[in-house]
Amino acid sequence: MTSKGSLLVISGPAGTGKGTIVKLLLQDEDYVVSVSTTTRAPRADDIPGVTYNFVTTEEFMNMIKNEELAEFAEYVGNYYGTPVKTIKELLKSGKNVILEIETLGALQIKARFPEAILIWVSPPDYETLGERLRGRGTNTDEDIAKRLATAKRELQFLPYYDYIVINEKGRAEDAVNDIKRIVSINPMAIKQNSNFIQTFYKL
Amino acid sequence: MTSKGSLLVISGPAGTGKGTIVKLLLQDEDYVVSVSTTTRAPRADDIPGVTYNFVTTEEFMNMIKNEELAEFAEYVGNYYGTPVKTIKELLKSGKNVILEIETLGALQIKARFPEAILIWVSPPDYETLGERLRGRGTNTDEDIAKRLATAKRELQFLPYYDYIVINEKGRAEDAVNDIKRIVSINPMAIKQNSNFIQTFYKL
Repeated sequence: MTSKGSLLVISGPAGTGKGTIVKLLLQDEDYVVSVSTTTRAPRADDIPGVTYNFVTTEEFMNMIKNEELAEFAEYVGNYYGTPVKTIKELLKSGKNVILEIETLGALQIKARFPEAILIWVSPPDYETLGERLRGRGTNTDEDIAKRLATAKRELQFLPYYDYIVINEKGRAEDAVNDIKRIVSINPMAIKQNSNFIQTFYKL
Repeated sequence: MTSKGSLLVISGPAGTGKGTIVKLLLQDEDYVVSVSTTTRAPRADDIPGVTYNFVTTEEFMNMIKNEELAEFAEYVGNYYGTPVKTIKELLKSGKNVILEIETLGALQIKARFPEAILIWVSPPDYETLGERLRGRGTNTDEDIAKRLATAKRELQFLPYYDYIVINEKGRAEDAVNDIKRIVSINPMAIKQNSNFIQTFYKL
């Protein structure tokens, strides 16, 4: 069966603790994140090649034209994308590659990498979602309304996801274990084994 | 999330040890098999309602007409089928329901129960498949040729399966553990959570 790593897409409403989950996954050396490419200007705390790969808008457009990006999106005037090459190299090294991206990017990944596991991280109930969207007390009413509208829009993408993982308050380790269990059975998924099946059943 | 049991379809080439795997699964009280309905005459060792439910051909035809059967097949002049009602009741009781059926039946189940988990039990390699198809020394050349042809035909159904589980010689317990791990993450599958998602994200 396959010995390649799994490609893991992690999405979910704002404030659901995706960042914490990714940080915890990265404590396991079998997990890596793919470094994104962006056109935004580097900040003081950026480390090129580590936090981001920095390119010009022209270079970014060329990457799109040459189909070098597995997914890309625009955010407040800057472009962000994930190179296909980076993902492929990391997977080949046997690592499980994490992409923390939103729904539209997730769909692009599924199109390019049908074997990707799409995981939706969700709060346990509606009330908690509301609380988390209202955030750390720093969000304005307009912010909250915007985040609710986004959550509602993103719901339509859920049927394209493979799993829903509940992140209870203060139980991020449970969500991380759920994700690791999902990844551990992934080598048995039919869509991971087309080569095995083809070479095997050469009856 | 869901508290219902999972519906488990187990298929695979002849002689792969599916029967042993099912027997081992049944040692766990969370697993049950659904009793089939058949038109064949009861044998001395049959217990009606336990080994099979026995019906007349007319009753069987009525069950088909009334869409009471989740799947059915003909085998040497007799009919065999699985009632939808039996499956639903067992699932509601929280049990994981096992159906050991061939590919055509598996597809019928997937149509009626899209949330079913279709598992293909496979020998580890082609040579082992050949050995197992040749069987316990009791199979004629004609038998073996027939079984090879069946295995080849069934291969076309593999893309409709969800998982492939390898059954190594003398390692049926490993295959059973693999299946239990698959079942344990099933409540997180998106297709198991449409109700949760609908009631939850009523934004």
